[in-house]
This record gives sequence, C-alpha cells and structure tokens, in this order.
Amino acid sequence: MKAIVKVEPKKGFSLVEVNEPTISFSHDVKIKVLKASICGTDVHIYKWDNWAKNRIKSLPQIDGHEFVGKVIEVGEEVKNVKPGDLVVGDSHIPCGHCYHCRNGNMHVCQSLKILGVDTNGVFSEYIVLPDVVLLKIDESIPLEYASVMEPLGNAIFTTTVADLRGSLVLITGAGPIGLMALAVSKISGASFVVVSEISEYRSKMAKDVGADLVINPVNNSVVDKIMELTDGLGADVFLEMSGNESALNDGILSLKNTGVASILGVYPEDRINFEMNAAVFKNLTIHTITGRKMFETWYLSASWLKYKKLDLSKIVTHQFDFNNFEEAFELMASGQSGKIVLNVAAD
Amino acid sequence: MKAIVKVEPKKGFSLVEVNEPTISFSHDVKIKVLKASICGTDVHIYKWDNWAKNRIKSLPQIDGHEFVGKVIEVGEEVKNVKPGDLVVGDSHIPCGHCYHCRNGNMHVCQSLKILGVDTNGVFSEYIVLPDVVLLKIDESIPLEYASVMEPLGNAIFTTTVADLRGSLVLITGAGPIGLMALAVSKISGASFVVVSEISEYRSKMAKDVGADLVINPVNNSVVDKIMELTDGLGADVFLEMSGNESALNDGILSLKNTGVASILGVYPEDRINFEMNAAVFKNLTIHTITGRKMFETWYLSASWLKYKKLDLSKIVTHQFDFNNFEEAFELMASGQSGKIVLNVAAD
Amino acid sequence: MKAIVKVEPKKGFSLVEVNEPTISFSHDVKIKVLKASICGTDVHIYKWDNWAKNRIKSLPQIDGHEFVGKVIEVGEEVKNVKPGDLVVGDSHIPCGHCYHCRNGNMHVCQSLKILGVDTNGVFSEYIVLPDVVLLKIDESIPLEYASVMEPLGNAIFTTTVADLRGSLVLITGAGPIGLMALAVSKISGASFVVVSEISEYRSKMAKDVGADLVINPVNNSVVDKIMELTDGLGADVFLEMSGNESALNDGILSLKNTGVASILGVYPEDRINFEMNAAVFKNLTIHTITGRKMFETWYLSASWLKYKKLDLSKIVTHQFDFNNFEEAFELMASGQSGKIVLNVAAD
Amino acid sequence: MKAIVKVEPKKGFSLVEVNEPTISFSHDVKIKVLKASICGTDVHIYKWDNWAKNRIKSLPQIDGHEFVGKVIEVGEEVKNVKPGDLVVGDSHIPCGHCYHCRNGNMHVCQSLKILGVDTNGVFSEYIVLPDVVLLKIDESIPLEYASVMEPLGNAIFTTTVADLRGSLVLITGAGPIGLMALAVSKISGASFVVVSEISEYRSKMAKDVGADLVINPVNNSVVDKIMELTDGLGADVFLEMSGNESALNDGILSLKNTGVASILGVYPEDRINFEMNAAVFKNLTIHTITGRKMFETWYLSASWLKYKKLDLSKIVTHQFDFNNFEEAFELMASGQSGKIVLNVAAD
Repeated sequence: MKAIVKVEPKKGFSLVEVNEPTISFSHDVKIKVLKASICGTDVHIYKWDNWAKNRIKSLPQIDGHEFVGKVIEVGEEVKNVKPGDLVVGDSHIPCGHCYHCRNGNMHVCQSLKILGVDTNGVFSEYIVLPDVVLLKIDESIPLEYASVMEPLGNAIFTTTVADLRGSLVLITGAGPIGLMALAVSKISGASFVVVSEISEYRSKMAKDVGADLVINPVNNSVVDKIMELTDGLGADVFLEMSGNESALNDGILSLKNTGVASILGVYPEDRINFEMNAAVFKNLTIHTITGRKMFETWYLSASWLKYKKLDLSKIVTHQFDFNNFEEAFELMASGQSGKIVLNVAAD
Repeated sequence: MKAIVKVEPKKGFSLVEVNEPTISFSHDVKIKVLKASICGTDVHIYKWDNWAKNRIKSLPQIDGHEFVGKVIEVGEEVKNVKPGDLVVGDSHIPCGHCYHCRNGNMHVCQSLKILGVDTNGVFSEYIVLPDVVLLKIDESIPLEYASVMEPLGNAIFTTTVADLRGSLVLITGAGPIGLMALAVSKISGASFVVVSEISEYRSKMAKDVGADLVINPVNNSVVDKIMELTDGLGADVFLEMSGNESALNDGILSLKNTGVASILGVYPEDRINFEMNAAVFKNLTIHTITGRKMFETWYLSASWLKYKKLDLSKIVTHQFDFNNFEEAFELMASGQSGKIVLNVAAD
Repeated sequence: MKAIVKVEPKKGFSLVEVNEPTISFSHDVKIKVLKASICGTDVHIYKWDNWAKNRIKSLPQIDGHEFVGKVIEVGEEVKNVKPGDLVVGDSHIPCGHCYHCRNGNMHVCQSLKILGVDTNGVFSEYIVLPDVVLLKIDESIPLEYASVMEPLGNAIFTTTVADLRGSLVLITGAGPIGLMALAVSKISGASFVVVSEISEYRSKMAKDVGADLVINPVNNSVVDKIMELTDGLGADVFLEMSGNESALNDGILSLKNTGVASILGVYPEDRINFEMNAAVFKNLTIHTITGRKMFETWYLSASWLKYKKLDLSKIVTHQFDFNNFEEAFELMASGQSGKIVLNVAAD
Repeated sequence: MKAIVKVEPKKGFSLVEVNEPTISFSHDVKIKVLKASICGTDVHIYKWDNWAKNRIKSLPQIDGHEFVGKVIEVGEEVKNVKPGDLVVGDSHIPCGHCYHCRNGNMHVCQSLKILGVDTNGVFSEYIVLPDVVLLKIDESIPLEYASVMEPLGNAIFTTTVADLRGSLVLITGAGPIGLMALAVSKISGASFVVVSEISEYRSKMAKDVGADLVINPVNNSVVDKIMELTDGLGADVFLEMSGNESALNDGILSLKNTGVASILGVYPEDRINFEMNAAVFKNLTIHTITGRKMFETWYLSASWLKYKKLDLSKIVTHQFDFNNFEEAFELMASGQSGKIVLNVAAD
C-alpha cells in the first residue's frame, strides 16, 4: 500500500509502497483510510526540527494521526465497531487498565502512546488500531469534517471546561485549533469573543469564523482593550491556544477576578515567566489541557456535527489528493491555510 | 398616581388613583415604571382562584412584579443605582443579612417577601423598592425585553444548572417561561430540543422559537419518541416547566442514565406521585428551582440581551396600553399569547 | 467445588457440589474466593420473596456478589491483575463498549448484568469474572473489610456526591450501608450527623459508629428535631438509605434551602408520594444513586482502608464458617447484625 | 484608648493613647476588641520592610486585622449583629454593590480595602467596622481560636476548593496557615498528608498537628518522595502555602495527571519561573486563592469550631498581654512560634 513516510532524518516525507498492516491482537481493527488531515505536529516532523529530532524514536515511520476511515476487519474481541462502520479515532492510545484509564481519564494514561509519533501513523491506505481509540460516527457527517475531529476535540476540551453562557471570551492564537475554539465558543452561549492574533491571514479567518473583535497584540494592548470593553472588570474566560508566553500573560492579566483560564498551548521552554501573583490576587481557576477527554469530547463533537450545529466550512480550507502531499505540507507550513485534508481514498 | 389594584376579594382588578409611594428607608429607591409584564401569578390573582385566596394576605393591594423603570430618587445609603438609571428588579425581596443572603443565595432568603404578593406590586406609575433587588441595565436593551427579565431569569436559572453543549433536551410545557427556556437552550449549545405541549397555540409558538420537535403528549408517548430519537439511550437534559405530574414523570422516564433534570414547575398538590425508583436506577441529578440566582442570572440575561444573542421577539407577543389592562389579562388567561407587556409610561 | 445454591424456587439455599467454573474468554479471571459477605439482596433470594421470584430468571443459581479472593488464573488479554493478586470486584458487570462504559459510567452500562442475580454468584470456592470488574488491593487491608468493599462503595458513592465539610448531615436508615455512610460522613468533615432509625439494635449500632444524635421517627418528628438543632435553617445534607417513603419525605422537609439530598434507597412501589413542591421551593440538588462509580469509589475506599482512615470494626459484626451459612442468613434476616462475612477458604 | 500604632516610617510599633473611633455611618458597628492575633503581614509592617514601605499609604496608622470582640453599639441600618454579640470579621472590606459583591464574591470586590493596611486596624481597645464584614459566632468557641478565624479562613478556602476524600495531599510550607491547612486536610478525608518545610521548628509543629510525613526539601527531593509513595502516580492534591517558587514547581511536578493545585502563596516577584508545560501535559486544575469566600468559609469554620471537630490547640502556641506586644512581635518574627494571640481586654 502507499504511505507518507519519514524515511531519513532530514526534511521531507516520501510517498512509498509499504506492507499493509495486519491484525495481530484480538482488539485490533483494520481500517481503510478515507481522509486524513495535517496537524502542526506533522509539520514539525516534515521539517525535521529540533522537537521532531528529539521526539521521534525510530525511522522509517509513517506519519499522521488525524483521520476518518471505514472498518474492514476486526479482531475477535472487538465489540464497539464492525466492518463497514465509518470511524474516527483518538491519537492517544491508552493502555486501558491503569489508574487513569479506569477512572475516566484515558487521555492521560500512565503508558500513553501517541499515534504517528510513537507508532506508525495514519497517512497510508490502511491502518490497524486498537478498538479502544475508535468511535463509530453518523454517515451524515461530511468526511472532511470527520477527519478533523481529533483536533476539534482539543478545542472542545479546552472550551468546555468553562461555562461560556453570557461570557466575554478572550482567545489568544487563531491557528486551526484556536479557530475551532472560536466556533465552539460562538455556539456555546458566549456573548462576545475577542481573538488575539498576529498573522493577518489568520486574523481574517477569525473574523470569517465569527470573532466579534480581533486584536493584533503587536499594535494594541490586549489587556487595555479587554478592560475598556468590560468597564475595567476583565474577561470571563480566557482560552490560550498559541503556546506564546506573552499571550499567556496577556490573558491572565485580562481576566476578571474569579475568571477561568484554559491553557492548551505548549511552550518552547518548559519553564516560562508567569504572572502568578496577578493570578493569585484574582482568585482564578486555571485548567491546563492535553488531548481530549475520552470519549465525552468525541460524543459531543459527533452530536454537533450530526445535528449541523457546528460549522467547520470556514476552518477546513483545503483538500489535496494524497499524491500531492508535498504541496499540502508546504501550504500548511506557510501559515496561509486553515485545516488541510488529504484525500487518501474514495469511500 | 394610577395603579392596577385588587380592591375586593373577587375576580378582576381596578385601575384606581392611589398615593405615590415615598422613600422611607435609606436603601429605598423610587422608580418611574415604564413597562410591566403579566405573569401567570398575576392571572391567578386576577381570577381570584383558590391559590390567590389563600396566598394574598390583605386588600387592597397593587398587583404585578415584572417591570422596567427609570430611577427618579434614591435613599441616602443607595450606591448601586442613581437617578436616571434604567433598572430592572427581582420580585424576591431578601432580608440581606441571613445565612442564605450572606452565602450568595438571596433568592431563598429565610425571610423572603414576594413583590406584588406579600407587598404592593409594580402595576402603577411609581414604585419604591429596596436597592438590593435592583440592577442597572444597558440602555440598548429594548424596554419590552427588559420588562420580562424576571421570568427570563427563571428560565435561565432552570436551564443553566445543566451543561447543554451537544445535548438532546426535553422541555415539558411551552408557556412563556418554557419558551424562554427553549430559546436559552438553543443558544447554549444544545444539539436538539424536543418540546412536549398540549396546546396547539403554544406548540406553534415552540416551533417558531426553534424547537426541533414538538410532541403532543395526548397523542404520542414522549418516552417512546425520545427513546426512538436516541437509540434507546434517553435525553441528556430534562427541563420541567409545566407543573404537571404526568409531564414530570414522562421526563424522568425519558432521561438517559446519569441525565440531569431541572424542575421549575410547582404542582397543584404538595405531594405528587413520582417515579423515584426509575430515578434511582438511572443515577440522575435533579435540580429543583425557585426564583433566580441573584444576581448571576440577571447579569447573564443582561449580557445576552445587550449583545443581541438572545431573541425574545417571538416570545413577547403583545403590548397593551396600561388603561387596557383588562383586555391584556383576558388574553393572557386565554392561553393564546406569549408574554404580554403593559405600557405604563413613556420614557 | 462447594457452593451456596438456590436449587428450587422456595425459601433457603443448599450447600452443594458443583463444577468449578473455567476461563472461557480471553478477559476472564479465575479467583479463589477467600471471604464473601451477605447483602440484603441475598436475604431476599434466601427468603424467596416476591422481589426474588420476579427478578431471578433461572435456577439453579449460585448466590452472592460481595467477596475478596486471590487470582489463580487469567485469560490471555487480562492485564490489570495477575495470579497471586488479592482482588475485590464490582457486582455490576458492564459491557465495556456502550456510551456509558466509554464515558466513565460503567456502573450504569446499557447492558448491565448483576453478579449473583443475572449470573452465578460468589458464594462458592471459585469464581470466574471478567477483568473489567476487578481491582487489585493492598495486602494490608483486613480480608473481612475487603469483602464488604462492594456495599461500602454504595455508601461512599451516596456520600461523596455532596461536600460534607462543616455540614449537618441527616441519614435515614441505619442498616449496614447506612452505618457505612455514617462512618464515611464522620471522616469527611461533617460537623454533626443525625441518624433516623426505628430499630433499637441498629440505633445502638449507629451510636457506636459515631452518630451525634439518633432519632426514632416513630416517637419524634425528625423535621422538628433538625429545625431545632439548626435554628430553623435545616440540614445541609440528607442521605436516604432506608427505601422508606416516609423517611424520604422527612429528609426533604428537613433540608435547608439549597441543601443536597442523595438517595440510595429503592422503594417498594415504583411511584411514591413525594414532597416535590417543598423540594422546588427549597432549590435543592437531589442525587439518585445506583451502584458505585467505577472505579473512583473503589480506589477511594482502598485508600481509606490501606491508610487506616476508615474503621469498619463496629460495622462488620459477625463472621461464619462457609458451612454454617444458614445460621448466618437467619441472623442477617433477623436484623440483629451488622455486616456478616462468610469465611469461604483460608488464604 | 490604647492602640498599637505605626507612628513613624521605621521599625517597630508604639502603644499609644488615641481617640476611640465612633460610629459615622448607619452600617457601622462599634466593637470592644477582646483578643487579636498577629499575621505575617503585621510582621512586615512591624519590620517596615520594602513591601510595607510601598504598601502603607499614610501614617500614623493602627495595625492589625485578626480579632474577636463584643459588639457595643450599632448604626441604625445594622441587622446582622446587635450589642452583646460575640463577633469576628473579615479583613477584606468590600463595597457591597459591585459586580463581584453581588455575585457571591465579596472577597474580590472591585473596590476592596484591607483592614489594618488601607485603614486603621484592630490592635486597639475599640474598633468600628461596617456590618458587612462581621459574623456573630457561638459563645462556646474559645476566644483565642475565634481570634484566628481570619487566617483559618484562608486555609479553609485553599483546602476546600479540592475534594480531599481518600487523597494524598502535599502541602508546601508549614507556617501558621500551612499548619491550619494541614489540620483541615486531616479532618476532610485525606488519606495521607505530606508537608514540605525547611524550618526544623515548623517541621516539628507539622508532625504534632498530624502530618503523615514531613520532608525537608533541602535534603530530599519532594518529587522523588511523592512518586515513591504513590508508585509513580503522583499526589492527588497540592496546597502551596509558602510563597516560594521552588516549592511551587516541586508541587506541580509532584501532582498526578488530573491533579488539583491550590495556590495561596504570594511570591517576591510578580513573574515567576513556572513549570507550565508539565502542568499542561498533566491536565491539572489550578486554583489561585486570595482571601476567604465570604461568608461560606466563615460559616464552615464556625461550625467546625462549635462542634469541636477542628483542633487548633497545637497551632495557637502563645498568648501575650496587649502591653507586651513587642515581645510577641519579636517572637513571631523569629519563626519559632505558631499563631500568637494578643489579649486586648477581658470579656
């Protein structure tokens, strides 16, 4: 079968022929990949930057972790899906039996493996995954939206730890997941959503997706603007989606007393300069977010997509044929796109 | 001044001249009433039914408890509003210093008085109220919507105790507050809202306000329909707005395991036949609701109305001149209306 | 092997020789039962009352669902326990792949089976159970306490849905699970715990376990007593452990405004007369409870027992040799005992 | 009357004669101070360090903000207390009418004044305070414990934002409030409490108050020890009571995935180096804490003290006559004490 593979430790991927994976364990599921989408992580691996060099353990490895596919074969213990089902899957592969897995928190399993990072990924015609990460979805959900449900889950998890009803929300960073958080905020009862973003292209996208105000923090003080909007009270909720220290501190300083921060960003340095005293005097609740609550966030996004409540049409901006993956990666790397979907196979 | 007064213990109200109320205490606020709206409670008092006979302690008494007005004079200790402010107010008049008042739950104060029931009400040209119940609102909010913020607060309190994101919601009863709960659900992330209602007029209103499905429980089984819609799982959230025992039990039986019920209805008998075993085996969370959380629900509705997130145009169906109050009460009593607003004075 | 079996549809059990169960599925675990304890459900089946007649589907069937044992063999997919491990297990056998199982709520699985009710139970020398219900526990936990962790889990789940810190708690019913809820309340920060109980024997036990006040509702008004204790405010938390309609309504009427009720009881009739209007005007939160949150309540009880925070010595009152099961059942049926443990085998 | 006054901008206080304060506003309450206790903030002002120089606006000023007293006179609008009542009071003086004050969060009022910092304090024979900060307490509570209910409220607020039942808790810093948090944890269901503390004197106190393990972070790795205790899982709850950056990061790194941190400490620099990436990958909930929730934490501590659930006897270590205040301050500054109480007047 064809697969997008990091063959050697340098920039780029190769579209090569590899053996089809086969079912080895009784909980394995073999899936024909229909569409797969490109994450920022894939771009790191494509570029082979320092993060990728340190994180990826062995080559060659198939890349990719966001997909929708059709089940074609199941191991003998598999009960949640069956051949013919349309499925999506989490990139967090949990052990299924540790403390966290047994307490509703598989997404932070003690022995977590990341699909396409610790294992072969989904940019291939067929994949084999354990049943525990799979969810059958409704056939009415457009495949390109289904293929981005993994990052959508990040946005939903980040957003749904706070009650947004009637709130003024600040989102820092309008990359694809930031834009998804924006779309989610708009249908979750937020009264007014402010986005802070440097890129002109992404600022434009944020407006199209429904931001009530977009601020370029290079030219304007986010804190001043939020305080002006709220008569000095501050924002109710702050969603940090940028991984930028300065954006994070802007957000903390913009919150009202008793406000809620939800931080999905990962920062270039493990220790950052953080406005802790301001946080303390404001009596905040700060949620730090990784992955997606399994499977609450999946059921939630499946519901919104099935009932047409959540519109991703302005966030999934491009689709490429699988063979044109290089063009897709270069575009993604340029920052001049929303989510990009690779069409791997027809249904 | 003119006021709508229950003069004698029989059906009807009289529009009579009474003395203007004056500021007696340092926390009193004198308000010129602009618009006032009619509640089901007012209809009970108008009709002088058994509930009213038992509940109303002394006559004559001015009726009404939903209003918007302009502050014209304040007592010397008043700090939250000032002359010229546009204000709305809660009908629950708390003591301000009991256990509940000091723990963020003034709406269930140990010494609560109800405006227009335990005291003279708001259907008059001027009212005097303690500052503790008043909230200044934004001038951009249409006055007819401001005048219904008290019942809207009931709907918001009932609805916001549950997280509606991605949920299938069942609402039993499409009276004015049920319709408001429907409108609130639709902007709070619900995926699908089912309304159960017997009246054809109100069923039509529910569809106009955005119900995804309206069921007449006389003709169809609510439980069967919900189970069909959810593949036998059940509804995520149930909002009981009817005060009807049968509707309440339908809702409990329609909920999924771990579902959430929120009950605003008050029942004709204090003890009702309740499906408790079903509730126990489903592991539910049941919120019983009275009044409105002060002032969280007020700030929330003020935010949604200010930012035009909540549309009440299909729920506030009629406005009448103050002098035509009888026509308004007869229409309200007929059940062929949404909220009815009385225009007391021009701004 | 020896087993306590309901052979015929009449009162009593028989200790008979049956075949040892064997591992059939890759997730099966074979366990040597060390101790097993008797539940009220077992007494219903022993007596063969109407509930038992309607609920038990096929005979002969081995009874029992509370146990501690040692793993002696595991199926090939089993990862959470291994031979030699000391284990306890939930009586709720979930499917593992439905909506509830995948959202942290296995205890209300859509296809739940109850151990010893829908299947052969644990009153035998060996049992085979699916790995999903098993938890390895610390060897330092006394075996007789380990054998009652299943009902302890009910008590913990009922109790921990409320925050008891500084609270006045009313518990109606001092059967074994009510007494466990009492012990749990005392170590969870409750200030004062009132128990309502009719039986003199159990009232005495409640005092021994630490109740601050025990009321016999036949002689005294629970509501009056609670109101007297709280200056008319009411109890903070109410735990209904009796399955008695009158006790339930007493509890609701005894709660303060914004109080929390947690109801574990199951009632003789599915519909009961319930003080709903009082509940509504008090703005309560009512949790209805079934089973035990898996596996949060298990980890919690394992922690308290390991660190000697929870003392069950006055609640587990008797131990009997497996062969003397009839004496044990008769004692349990008399109501003159706490939890009774059957010693099935030495370690 | 006599008062402990900062007369000049240099080290020390003076016991001087000043005029008795009088009731000026209708919500004022005049109180005879019985006992007052010394906070770390008072030591800063006593020493006149940089923090004090920058924070204190005008001299001379009476110091102190922790007290218990007897009401001797009330303004005409005062309803929550009356002459003869034993009262304690919050040091956070709220405006009573801003957004936060009206939503149950007076402790973070937009116009907050701090008693004894922004105003004259309580180290004097008589004080006048607004009724909004006062709570009547039960006469059975020992006065020396009543006098420390303000800092106890900090400890309770920090502790009660997390559910401690069955938890392993790490507390960094065993100053008086850290010790109170320890005592609170022990009665709130914690299974095992680890304290990290450098001072030998305070480590000894922590053991006396009930710490299950005390670690000196200079000699041992807190993170390693916690991971060893929990088989690599991590602590459930982390309470940061030290204001030390290194202790804060130790705590974050010691938490389990999905753990809860509660941070009361204030840090020497507004921006600190914080382990944010670790926090993100662990999916934590971080509460930053200031003041005390009014009046929930007060009612809670009053309940525990009234019912003798909370033992402060090993935390309130010294009492001094008012005239010997200098000895008291020097002892407090030495770090060789728990809470120190000044006996201002006999009841």
